[in-house]
Amino acid sequence: MVGIGIVGAGRMGQLHAVNFAGHTAKSRVVAVADENPELAGRLAGQYGAAAFGKYQDLIEDDRVDALCICTPVFTHKEISLAALAAGKHVLCEKPLALTLDDALAIHQAAEKAGVVFQVAFMRRFDEAFVTAKEKIKAGTIGRPVFVRSTGRDPGLPPVPGWGSDPDACGDISFELCSHDYDSIQWLLDSDIKSVFARAGILSSVEVAKSCGGKMINDTLVVTAEFENGALGSIDGLLNIKYGYDARVEVVGDEGIIMIGNVRHLDVITGKADKHMTYPAAPSFTDRFVHAYVTEARHFVDCILEGRKPVVGSLEGLKAVQVALAVNDSIKKGSVAQVK
Amino acid sequence: MVGIGIVGAGRMGQLHAVNFAGHTAKSRVVAVADENPELAGRLAGQYGAAAFGKYQDLIEDDRVDALCICTPVFTHKEISLAALAAGKHVLCEKPLALTLDDALAIHQAAEKAGVVFQVAFMRRFDEAFVTAKEKIKAGTIGRPVFVRSTGRDPGLPPVPGWGSDPDACGDISFELCSHDYDSIQWLLDSDIKSVFARAGILSSVEVAKSCGGKMINDTLVVTAEFENGALGSIDGLLNIKYGYDARVEVVGDEGIIMIGNVRHLDVITGKADKHMTYPAAPSFTDRFVHAYVTEARHFVDCILEGRKPVVGSLEGLKAVQVALAVNDSIKKGSVAQVK
Amino acid sequence: MVGIGIVGAGRMGQLHAVNFAGHTAKSRVVAVADENPELAGRLAGQYGAAAFGKYQDLIEDDRVDALCICTPVFTHKEISLAALAAGKHVLCEKPLALTLDDALAIHQAAEKAGVVFQVAFMRRFDEAFVTAKEKIKAGTIGRPVFVRSTGRDPGLPPVPGWGSDPDACGDISFELCSHDYDSIQWLLDSDIKSVFARAGILSSVEVAKSCGGKMINDTLVVTAEFENGALGSIDGLLNIKYGYDARVEVVGDEGIIMIGNVRHLDVITGKADKHMTYPAAPSFTDRFVHAYVTEARHFVDCILEGRKPVVGSLEGLKAVQVALAVNDSIKKGSVAQVK
Amino acid sequence: MVGIGIVGAGRMGQLHAVNFAGHTAKSRVVAVADENPELAGRLAGQYGAAAFGKYQDLIEDDRVDALCICTPVFTHKEISLAALAAGKHVLCEKPLALTLDDALAIHQAAEKAGVVFQVAFMRRFDEAFVTAKEKIKAGTIGRPVFVRSTGRDPGLPPVPGWGSDPDACGDISFELCSHDYDSIQWLLDSDIKSVFARAGILSSVEVAKSCGGKMINDTLVVTAEFENGALGSIDGLLNIKYGYDARVEVVGDEGIIMIGNVRHLDVITGKADKHMTYPAAPSFTDRFVHAYVTEARHFVDCILEGRKPVVGSLEGLKAVQVALAVNDSIKKGSVAQVK
Repeated sequence: MVGIGIVGAGRMGQLHAVNFAGHTAKSRVVAVADENPELAGRLAGQYGAAAFGKYQDLIEDDRVDALCICTPVFTHKEISLAALAAGKHVLCEKPLALTLDDALAIHQAAEKAGVVFQVAFMRRFDEAFVTAKEKIKAGTIGRPVFVRSTGRDPGLPPVPGWGSDPDACGDISFELCSHDYDSIQWLLDSDIKSVFARAGILSSVEVAKSCGGKMINDTLVVTAEFENGALGSIDGLLNIKYGYDARVEVVGDEGIIMIGNVRHLDVITGKADKHMTYPAAPSFTDRFVHAYVTEARHFVDCILEGRKPVVGSLEGLKAVQVALAVNDSIKKGSVAQVK
Repeated sequence: MVGIGIVGAGRMGQLHAVNFAGHTAKSRVVAVADENPELAGRLAGQYGAAAFGKYQDLIEDDRVDALCICTPVFTHKEISLAALAAGKHVLCEKPLALTLDDALAIHQAAEKAGVVFQVAFMRRFDEAFVTAKEKIKAGTIGRPVFVRSTGRDPGLPPVPGWGSDPDACGDISFELCSHDYDSIQWLLDSDIKSVFARAGILSSVEVAKSCGGKMINDTLVVTAEFENGALGSIDGLLNIKYGYDARVEVVGDEGIIMIGNVRHLDVITGKADKHMTYPAAPSFTDRFVHAYVTEARHFVDCILEGRKPVVGSLEGLKAVQVALAVNDSIKKGSVAQVK
Repeated sequence: MVGIGIVGAGRMGQLHAVNFAGHTAKSRVVAVADENPELAGRLAGQYGAAAFGKYQDLIEDDRVDALCICTPVFTHKEISLAALAAGKHVLCEKPLALTLDDALAIHQAAEKAGVVFQVAFMRRFDEAFVTAKEKIKAGTIGRPVFVRSTGRDPGLPPVPGWGSDPDACGDISFELCSHDYDSIQWLLDSDIKSVFARAGILSSVEVAKSCGGKMINDTLVVTAEFENGALGSIDGLLNIKYGYDARVEVVGDEGIIMIGNVRHLDVITGKADKHMTYPAAPSFTDRFVHAYVTEARHFVDCILEGRKPVVGSLEGLKAVQVALAVNDSIKKGSVAQVK
Repeated sequence: MVGIGIVGAGRMGQLHAVNFAGHTAKSRVVAVADENPELAGRLAGQYGAAAFGKYQDLIEDDRVDALCICTPVFTHKEISLAALAAGKHVLCEKPLALTLDDALAIHQAAEKAGVVFQVAFMRRFDEAFVTAKEKIKAGTIGRPVFVRSTGRDPGLPPVPGWGSDPDACGDISFELCSHDYDSIQWLLDSDIKSVFARAGILSSVEVAKSCGGKMINDTLVVTAEFENGALGSIDGLLNIKYGYDARVEVVGDEGIIMIGNVRHLDVITGKADKHMTYPAAPSFTDRFVHAYVTEARHFVDCILEGRKPVVGSLEGLKAVQVALAVNDSIKKGSVAQVK
């Protein structure tokens, strides 16, 4: 039985808590830390866990075997390093960090600590993504030459809030598209070498006005070149209303694999307007509900069985490198190398 | 160049006229006959054709090589026999007739006349149906063991009117489901031997009241047994609002083929209600718009090349036999043999 | 924490054990009983549970709060009654029983015992089915007039074996289509009044020969009339190779709802043969993998919170009544009333 | 009746000839010109048309009311100008020209001539594209902010041949993606202002070797910025084997419209490998078979009714401008302005 300490009792903390507490038999939520004592208390209360105001208290708690870090990205380094120093396993929300230095520091500490360090790229556990990865690896489509990744969120992170403040969240490149960077490098088994990116506030003009224009970009288009010569195209869109939409197409020299679907449930309704209607996923938590459960189980299994997670600090670091290059390219208006 | 005479200037007459006049280079609409002189005149006027009040005048017109019979089913025998006696080719709307005697009389006259006699089962020319037929014939699904045919129309034939009067139109079994009888006998390459059927007025209760209850049934469910041992299930529904819906599934001992889709166009719209929407076919003329064109071309080509059409009087007769057995089964509440 | 005793360590026992042991935090598998000591031992061993040869030993074990009955249907009454008499909660696999007397006896005992008695109609917990039920209830499609239920299994129950012996399993009507009977009565909120059914061995002719012809029918077509006047059509097919296929369409006087899809995962592959390919569900355990987890959690929650399950002995009894009428109709070749 | 002269008796000439001769009643193919007398003779023979070796002879033929120009792009200017000077109507295959000067010269001549000059962007006549355009115009998705256009061809233009020679065909930007440039400028009702593009030979490495490397790029990724501020992403791929694939997604600040589908026909086959299979369009002629017919009819109707076609020389010019900017961006590795 693995004792989980949730750091950050917001949306992601609540989601992970449900899975660690209720959807796996081998873990328990034993502690919750949040600067907001009410949030910490409420979440802890649901699972009979201890509530703390500081993550340090949680690290010092012997019942806590592993931390699930669900705080803003700019806190990841401090908390990860403290946890690793105390020998705790870590499941860290994405993105890993906002700077190369921070990401490297975490990665090196994780490697050294010899515990389980997993980054919460939940697409790695989605059955469709996993099946596609296997098929690509098996040569079904030949050699991959092009990948298209679509990542769209119907809403915006809370405005105002750190998640919509480009400086605090790393802009849309970090906040939304880290998932795409990780998935396509994984699917193609090759790293992104250079990028060209354009971004703008297009669908949220009114919202941006309301916060003086200092807002996350809601539209991002990236052209990526991979080490293996393949080309990629990513579109990341926020505030597009219709649903959470994560789809990837990988084209090889012998065929194609298409992953995902806007359709969330196989329930189609038809009415006298002569149109058929089906639900899109309202949010990423709906789209990836089962992937999050599998992710939690994988983390627990890796801890109990001494295994390395399929997506660790190195993959977190690589996504940070691409996210930085994308922001660099946006700023200078030309191609940026991934370092 | 084949001169076409349209008999019956209503909905079907108009549809066929467009195709013979505008969508094939080898035929012209040279005459239109309708008891309603205004309808005849209007349709004839569009194509520079002669307008007649009686079909006999049209048959006597030398410019008319072929009749396209689009009048109510109870007139098919008289007009067909007269046309065949005059050596005219015939494209006859479905169903062929309402009684076995009438259908047989037409079939025998057609066989004897040695001209082209085609029945307007347009599904025979739909690309999806044709492709499926070829696959079944090629053994793709092994030996067919079950077929399910869904035929649904969003509306009702005009009420009052002959098409909604069960005595005049042969009820839903003739009016709607002849298409299903013909398609599945064709797809399975086997005739239906016996049927069990249930029918009722379920979705049009208010409409039925308005015409004193003497109305076509709007719901029909048929279980069919084929000569080759396969079983079949047909549902024919009228007034179901959401669109014209024609789908067939053929299951064999090695697989399945599914034909058709409620989706009419590949245009999907998503909005803030988190639902995606696509159009269904508003009517059979939309669903089978291309099949009707191919049907017209096939008829013209058969005339010009002296070929036998792929769906003739025999197939029309066989569908009548099933339609009769279905009505018989509904009446007596038990299994009826197809004679 | 609810202590679960699994009775029957075969396929279904193993499936439920995984869910009770691993996918909910509030239950444990504490005991397994199977006449085959090796099977019992192996399954029990996975969860650190006690292994028994007789279900009676399991009932006498104080750690066991609830029984999950996964034995052949003809044992359900004896085990259920014994468990209920001992005050144990019961999750009983479908169908509930093979005779009206047995089903009634179980239902009455369950009502009297005042514990949780749930029947394993897992479709009740499938997100698509549940969403559709809510929409129908909310009036989205108006008044239901027709329902079509498709239940198809790619394989056959083991031959020889009780599951393929029509006398031991109740034939395809009980073995496969109980799910359909339950779902459509639930979706339409109306009971089936009468049925007409045809069945045969069509896709498994060779297999049937190998066991002397005494084999479960592999094809069943049912026409159902509901108390509320609606009509229904069910096709249940075994050994159809292509995948597990459970789809339902409910047509109302204002629209339609379509539930389910042959597509199992959103992974589409295209190759040089110019065809696109996607996976069907290999078996019902894949198709309903998440529904089974939700079912297990519902059972545990009902026990812990003293609630009545959404699908209990009454629903199990009703499905048995329809299954009996269907078999009756097949035998006599005419309509049978549901009693 | 419009007399059509086909210039160029290759693949496109044959396709247009079928439509003008057989699928509209108001036009005839009266002449065919091709430098290859055998090709010209064979095509002309099918329609009882005159065969010529030079387009000039065809222009001088009085029976020819309109030219359908299906020769290589580098001949478009000369033939168009000669035809327009002779007062002939023109349907010109895409792209209009390879240089801005040529495109401008054609456009100006067309404007001056006052006849019908239509460019063969057949997507403008595809029912799905047209429906989507209407919905966007009606405000269904709010203000468009992003468009993604996918244009993929399963094969390569003949190698060796002018269509695979980047200098002769304008590379993939002209040869394949002109369609995308035109469609998205039309759908968004805004011109593309600047582009960033990457291209390469990725799926055809072996073929390229066989012709010494001087071959059309098979992969093109374009980021586009529109005058109205929207962003766009285009992927154009050749030799991707699985089928002809033309899909567009337009995202607005209130929703999305998705156009097209890899599925070509609604025929789904399932087999014992537990996979379902449906056909992709083998080529653009299959994907747009009905659009090409509508295009031909539109051209003929515009001539007969003295109307301006919905897609003329100006639209052809605009697509050339984007195609040039894309090639410019590829060459210099940075953003290029559309002039």
